[in-house]
Amino acid sequence: MTTDPSKLRLGIPKGSLQDPTVDLFYRSGYRINVSSRSYYPEIDDPGMSAMMFRSQEMSRYVEDGVIDFGICGHDWVVENNSDVHEVCELEYSRATSNPIRWVLAVPEESDIHKPEDLAGGIIATELKQTVKRYFEGKNIPIKKIEFSWGATEVKARLIDGIVDCTETGSSLRANKLRVLDTLLTSTTRMIANHDAWADPAKREKIEDIALLLQGAISAKSQVGLKLNVPRAKLDAVLAQMPSAQSPTVNELADKDWVAVEVIVDRTVERELVPKLSRAGGQAIFSYPLNKIIP
Amino acid sequence: MTTDPSKLRLGIPKGSLQDPTVDLFYRSGYRINVSSRSYYPEIDDPGMSAMMFRSQEMSRYVEDGVIDFGICGHDWVVENNSDVHEVCELEYSRATSNPIRWVLAVPEESDIHKPEDLAGGIIATELKQTVKRYFEGKNIPIKKIEFSWGATEVKARLIDGIVDCTETGSSLRANKLRVLDTLLTSTTRMIANHDAWADPAKREKIEDIALLLQGAISAKSQVGLKLNVPRAKLDAVLAQMPSAQSPTVNELADKDWVAVEVIVDRTVERELVPKLSRAGGQAIFSYPLNKIIP
Amino acid sequence: MTTDPSKLRLGIPKGSLQDPTVDLFYRSGYRINVSSRSYYPEIDDPGMSAMMFRSQEMSRYVEDGVIDFGICGHDWVVENNSDVHEVCELEYSRATSNPIRWVLAVPEESDIHKPEDLAGGIIATELKQTVKRYFEGKNIPIKKIEFSWGATEVKARLIDGIVDCTETGSSLRANKLRVLDTLLTSTTRMIANHDAWADPAKREKIEDIALLLQGAISAKSQVGLKLNVPRAKLDAVLAQMPSAQSPTVNELADKDWVAVEVIVDRTVERELVPKLSRAGGQAIFSYPLNKIIP
Amino acid sequence: MTTDPSKLRLGIPKGSLQDPTVDLFYRSGYRINVSSRSYYPEIDDPGMSAMMFRSQEMSRYVEDGVIDFGICGHDWVVENNSDVHEVCELEYSRATSNPIRWVLAVPEESDIHKPEDLAGGIIATELKQTVKRYFEGKNIPIKKIEFSWGATEVKARLIDGIVDCTETGSSLRANKLRVLDTLLTSTTRMIANHDAWADPAKREKIEDIALLLQGAISAKSQVGLKLNVPRAKLDAVLAQMPSAQSPTVNELADKDWVAVEVIVDRTVERELVPKLSRAGGQAIFSYPLNKIIP
Amino acid sequence: MTTDPSKLRLGIPKGSLQDPTVDLFYRSGYRINVSSRSYYPEIDDPGMSAMMFRSQEMSRYVEDGVIDFGICGHDWVVENNSDVHEVCELEYSRATSNPIRWVLAVPEESDIHKPEDLAGGIIATELKQTVKRYFEGKNIPIKKIEFSWGATEVKARLIDGIVDCTETGSSLRANKLRVLDTLLTSTTRMIANHDAWADPAKREKIEDIALLLQGAISAKSQVGLKLNVPRAKLDAVLAQMPSAQSPTVNELADKDWVAVEVIVDRTVERELVPKLSRAGGQAIFSYPLNKIIP
Amino acid sequence: MTTDPSKLRLGIPKGSLQDPTVDLFYRSGYRINVSSRSYYPEIDDPGMSAMMFRSQEMSRYVEDGVIDFGICGHDWVVENNSDVHEVCELEYSRATSNPIRWVLAVPEESDIHKPEDLAGGIIATELKQTVKRYFEGKNIPIKKIEFSWGATEVKARLIDGIVDCTETGSSLRANKLRVLDTLLTSTTRMIANHDAWADPAKREKIEDIALLLQGAISAKSQVGLKLNVPRAKLDAVLAQMPSAQSPTVNELADKDWVAVEVIVDRTVERELVPKLSRAGGQAIFSYPLNKIIP
Repeated sequence: MTTDPSKLRLGIPKGSLQDPTVDLFYRSGYRINVSSRSYYPEIDDPGMSAMMFRSQEMSRYVEDGVIDFGICGHDWVVENNSDVHEVCELEYSRATSNPIRWVLAVPEESDIHKPEDLAGGIIATELKQTVKRYFEGKNIPIKKIEFSWGATEVKARLIDGIVDCTETGSSLRANKLRVLDTLLTSTTRMIANHDAWADPAKREKIEDIALLLQGAISAKSQVGLKLNVPRAKLDAVLAQMPSAQSPTVNELADKDWVAVEVIVDRTVERELVPKLSRAGGQAIFSYPLNKIIP
Repeated sequence: MTTDPSKLRLGIPKGSLQDPTVDLFYRSGYRINVSSRSYYPEIDDPGMSAMMFRSQEMSRYVEDGVIDFGICGHDWVVENNSDVHEVCELEYSRATSNPIRWVLAVPEESDIHKPEDLAGGIIATELKQTVKRYFEGKNIPIKKIEFSWGATEVKARLIDGIVDCTETGSSLRANKLRVLDTLLTSTTRMIANHDAWADPAKREKIEDIALLLQGAISAKSQVGLKLNVPRAKLDAVLAQMPSAQSPTVNELADKDWVAVEVIVDRTVERELVPKLSRAGGQAIFSYPLNKIIP
Repeated sequence: MTTDPSKLRLGIPKGSLQDPTVDLFYRSGYRINVSSRSYYPEIDDPGMSAMMFRSQEMSRYVEDGVIDFGICGHDWVVENNSDVHEVCELEYSRATSNPIRWVLAVPEESDIHKPEDLAGGIIATELKQTVKRYFEGKNIPIKKIEFSWGATEVKARLIDGIVDCTETGSSLRANKLRVLDTLLTSTTRMIANHDAWADPAKREKIEDIALLLQGAISAKSQVGLKLNVPRAKLDAVLAQMPSAQSPTVNELADKDWVAVEVIVDRTVERELVPKLSRAGGQAIFSYPLNKIIP
Repeated sequence: MTTDPSKLRLGIPKGSLQDPTVDLFYRSGYRINVSSRSYYPEIDDPGMSAMMFRSQEMSRYVEDGVIDFGICGHDWVVENNSDVHEVCELEYSRATSNPIRWVLAVPEESDIHKPEDLAGGIIATELKQTVKRYFEGKNIPIKKIEFSWGATEVKARLIDGIVDCTETGSSLRANKLRVLDTLLTSTTRMIANHDAWADPAKREKIEDIALLLQGAISAKSQVGLKLNVPRAKLDAVLAQMPSAQSPTVNELADKDWVAVEVIVDRTVERELVPKLSRAGGQAIFSYPLNKIIP
Repeated sequence: MTTDPSKLRLGIPKGSLQDPTVDLFYRSGYRINVSSRSYYPEIDDPGMSAMMFRSQEMSRYVEDGVIDFGICGHDWVVENNSDVHEVCELEYSRATSNPIRWVLAVPEESDIHKPEDLAGGIIATELKQTVKRYFEGKNIPIKKIEFSWGATEVKARLIDGIVDCTETGSSLRANKLRVLDTLLTSTTRMIANHDAWADPAKREKIEDIALLLQGAISAKSQVGLKLNVPRAKLDAVLAQMPSAQSPTVNELADKDWVAVEVIVDRTVERELVPKLSRAGGQAIFSYPLNKIIP
Repeated sequence: MTTDPSKLRLGIPKGSLQDPTVDLFYRSGYRINVSSRSYYPEIDDPGMSAMMFRSQEMSRYVEDGVIDFGICGHDWVVENNSDVHEVCELEYSRATSNPIRWVLAVPEESDIHKPEDLAGGIIATELKQTVKRYFEGKNIPIKKIEFSWGATEVKARLIDGIVDCTETGSSLRANKLRVLDTLLTSTTRMIANHDAWADPAKREKIEDIALLLQGAISAKSQVGLKLNVPRAKLDAVLAQMPSAQSPTVNELADKDWVAVEVIVDRTVERELVPKLSRAGGQAIFSYPLNKIIP
């Protein structure tokens, strides 16, 4: 089996992003079937094929044109120095919307207080090229940048310093490390090969998929809300609505009543519903959304 | 970490009620994050904090003002003799809506046939105070009321009698026990501290949460139902509707048709849909609800 | 416990069809409670009772009137030569909608190339009667038809030939077997006892349930889609709609806008939403469906 | 892949006997590797090959010479009327050493009280041929013997009677069935093809394997027990030993002491150890066994 | 079902001690079968019966004679003030052999520095009676001793102080609590009813079981070690042996060699084996033990 | 926390080798407690400390003296070009004792048939340095050696060739790859830092641990075998023994009998036991071993 260039070839990230990505595609309308024994998942669109790569090497295969587009962290695009088109950001894979930061860190008790103090030292990291470029950019000579196979934070006390990723900083604090500098911030991105992006048919399909994925991401945090309002109380009810949303008001058979429907954030809904009830709304209900395009 | 009185402090019941309670709050719009190592779950409302207590001791901490409000069984409010405000009943935690009953029981083959026959006997129970008050109220002297650490029904044959809880009576039958009397019936309740309830801001927020929780409970058993009806058949269709519900009739662009929308019980829906189809309804569909406020 | 003829008695298939069937009934409005220790699941309709049978013997118990109707594969209706009424086909239990085929197969390297070459041979199969009738119909004498307890495809090389079921043919290919003929194709069916079907009350209820189950099956692959459209762009938006569907257009309070609502296939939706967005649709959203009756 | 007649071909029972059988062979010195996708397990003896069959069809393939020997229940040898050599009984697969019994049973409330009362009735069973022969042997005409796909005990109330297997009788009691007769008792057996048994090399190897399997079965319920005894107390200690065992008495360097070693049942050990301690044994210890050949 | 006084009645602790206890009895020669639905486990000794009780209430039922002997923590014997015979200590249930300590503790930041400072305060604990007796013994008046349903350490900051159990102190440190005093240390014990202990037959059987359980506990941390030694090097080899053990020296057929056998701790074995090898031991091997009686 | 140079510092491989390594140490007498949150496992020897590293980076930390000795694959010692002392080979981690081979492979259909054909091509591998040295040694210019993050065999069809590891070759066959050359064979090794090896105390302890680990590995595939033999048949019995083993012959109190004890391979035992039985051995039994030092 190999990749078929007549199809739009998608790269799915293997590892921690895999299940959320398959789920996101499902909510966007695409069923991706990942067999545990194959690196070629099935996708139920005859115009597409899919391959799995580790997020770390995704951008290299997009750049080379082995696949047309893929999803991976921005950090590894930078590390690989890959020349690809960035289609959009996709915030779906983590609990918070904080980006990941790659930071230069040393033990709290270390005498090293600024990057320059690391001159002649040894650094462990998963992003060797990024760290090399960082110190070259600052004209700081480093003795050795060692590739770290995980658990980088533990090694800060074994050598001179590390460059590791952190989301909330809690692992840094737990290991009593001090941050000297931030080299890179990163989020999940959709990236495309330049030739694919220049091909109008491929570009349109990639844009459509980006729209659908973003629509599915947005819908997760919103609900549809619908209620009946006596015409006399309509202004009072509408006054409760969050200003950002424009409610849909609907004629009903009974002319004394109108139906009002609105899409609101989940976190807004819980405030809004009691207010709408007190303002005279009746038969209020909400329903889940699959997708929403602003 | 301790409780912050400037926030509305919620008590979440640990044990069998825990997961259904977290789920109910989620469906009401609140995300509660229970860490396995902490008794302070996170709640995504900066105006609230949460603590976990066993249902058995919830009312004591509400009474003392350690928390402002909480959820627990009515039985343990009674056992603890706690002076708290009862906000509402919440039927969400069990398969049936039967209340729990605490009953005085003896083996079927026992010579004891009424509470008075237990004079001078030993009783095992988890509700020692409740049992003590019961027998004092009847002027029946009891030799000893022993606290039972679970499996109370097994002990009925080891001592003289037990007071144990039952929902359907099946465990009593399985253990061949005979009920002499019912001391207490109990359901899950939301209870509040009197001072918190007297504070208008806290009370409004507690009432809003009660409304949301009750709304989420109601929605589980209902669905939204929508269909298109030729105007000529509208009366026939509306005649099928359950009398309790008032359907919403909607103007459509094609003036020969109207849209009808109604919220019905899940158990009603399955009867209603075939009838509506025969009466001329078309494009009938139903959709799940997250919340409904009558 | 035994079956109560005053109730409508349903047969639920035990085995691989069990969980999908319980789920389908749930989505149709019926809660079926399967205890691991009982063959009499509970169903929350006082007018019905349920029993579990293996798909292989379902039709015999429907024919005998032990149950009024049930769900099973067509293949075993044929094998058992059961005289039952077929109510409808139900496509819900497999990934594809391909029917199962029962095929006569031999090893690829075998000298046997047509059914006649098996004269005097031994055949292993789970459908002994069907195979017997097949060879009798062709006047081909067979030495022995052995009942196979599973793994039939492995036995093709131990005796002369097998009759086994296949959905995609992949197991045949994996075992390097060659198909000589197809004896039977089969899908899942609802079947009813003739007397039950002749009883108007029972027949109406069976038809209602068939309607609901088919409605639930259809709904799984469709979504509701709703959007707001400037009146000026309505024609452009409607031109995008799949011809099979007739969209519902709704008056809104703001007379420059209308609401458009339509039910579309999941696989259509992902194409449609980007088009509707480009054509001027706004506040587009979709929502899941529980049931749809055409 | 097919069976290689130059090797000794073993049949391993698929289903509930599979894991205990693989474990028993492991404890006997043979590593069998069962792949979930193959019916040809690997065995680490170049002179042997293995196949898996359901216990129900094992004897047919042994009789036909597809395999040389196999392990299965005696009941299915009888049901299949297979002409095979029975090598030995192997008691390793169940909690108790009770044989399985196949019994004719009816509901407790039935009017049927002896086999003759079933004349003209319908019987459900998994052992159709055995039941047919039983009633023919008694000259009792039966209307129909139906093959039952499991859950036979439930069917006793749907038709006239059943023949089902039972180990302790608890399932019969739980279903309130009354036993009219026992048709067959059965244990697990090693069986061999007659030609294989007549071949001296194959027979010796089958006998060796039977010896090893029986040795491993015995070892599970026995332990090695060792103690030091002052020579003066040796007779008193030996007097405690169970008569069936002949202890090995061993010279020690210190001529006042001897070492005594014996193999005893686990259930004897718990009685014996305290007695030996009181009789003057010292440094008593016991250790697990892999295998024991008397 | 009830307890049969003609049998020796054993109490098995339910909860965290249950599985280690069943395993310990198994290694001692007794198979106990705990059904998830029954409080009467089966034991394979016709002269015994078993019941399950929570460790907290075990001593009460032993004292009352509902059972003859049982296993539970010493702490709850003290809390219940039960008059029972203590047979022996059994160290088998925890990772370390540290006893559990029940300590009086307050938050690190608290102004309370000695028990006397708690006069007039509120204490939460699971051992209400023990705490009451402790403060009465010191003549310190306490306002209220509240029963705590678990998570006691969390409550130290909600009231004035707690009495909670700790094994390593890590939970106290994690909750930043300061220990003021230790009220009680506790290990697992076998306890017997006084009447049962006075009955010679029952006492002998209880003593035998205690011997077997202790033998099985010892065996877990020891191994049998065996080696052949040239007679000329025997003294050098024996000089390496730990003084506590007396090795068994054994004549071999080859008179230049002797066999040496000794039981040693697992933690000793790893030091000893290399030394024995250097001192001239050959064919050194070690093997697991089931039971060891010194 | 950091490493303490006064202790002997052990490196435990993280990943697939971790659990077998911890188990091997346990069987050797060392209890290692791996917390899921720490990289510093506890080891129950006050003279030792432990750290976890990925097998890939173990040799670098041994070379640098961060740890004194560790366990890892020989392949990564070579890849890292680490200057360490190799203590011994340890065969315990895989089903077979085949070493891992790192092979240069291309698709079966590729035109590349020898390493030289890859001149100017792109190679993906996890062993970049090893591959670089291999092609430099052969004077074959390679365009690019790309680091592969797993699933290397899939990439053979995306670029020109791969260097991947294989144990049995089955993954190569499944991916239809052709092997051009073998670059490296590898097994698991214990390696030590040169300074630690030069320190007599550290070296003795490392050697002792190596002895114990090898003893525990040997014991897994061997059993102790013991039997009683009439003195008259001793020669016949001893003639059956495998020549490699020298049995221990033991005097018994009954002078007509001797006891024979021998350690044999599990795979020999199954041949030997039936022969010994036929030669006159009695009370033959075998028992498991923990450790064996020849």
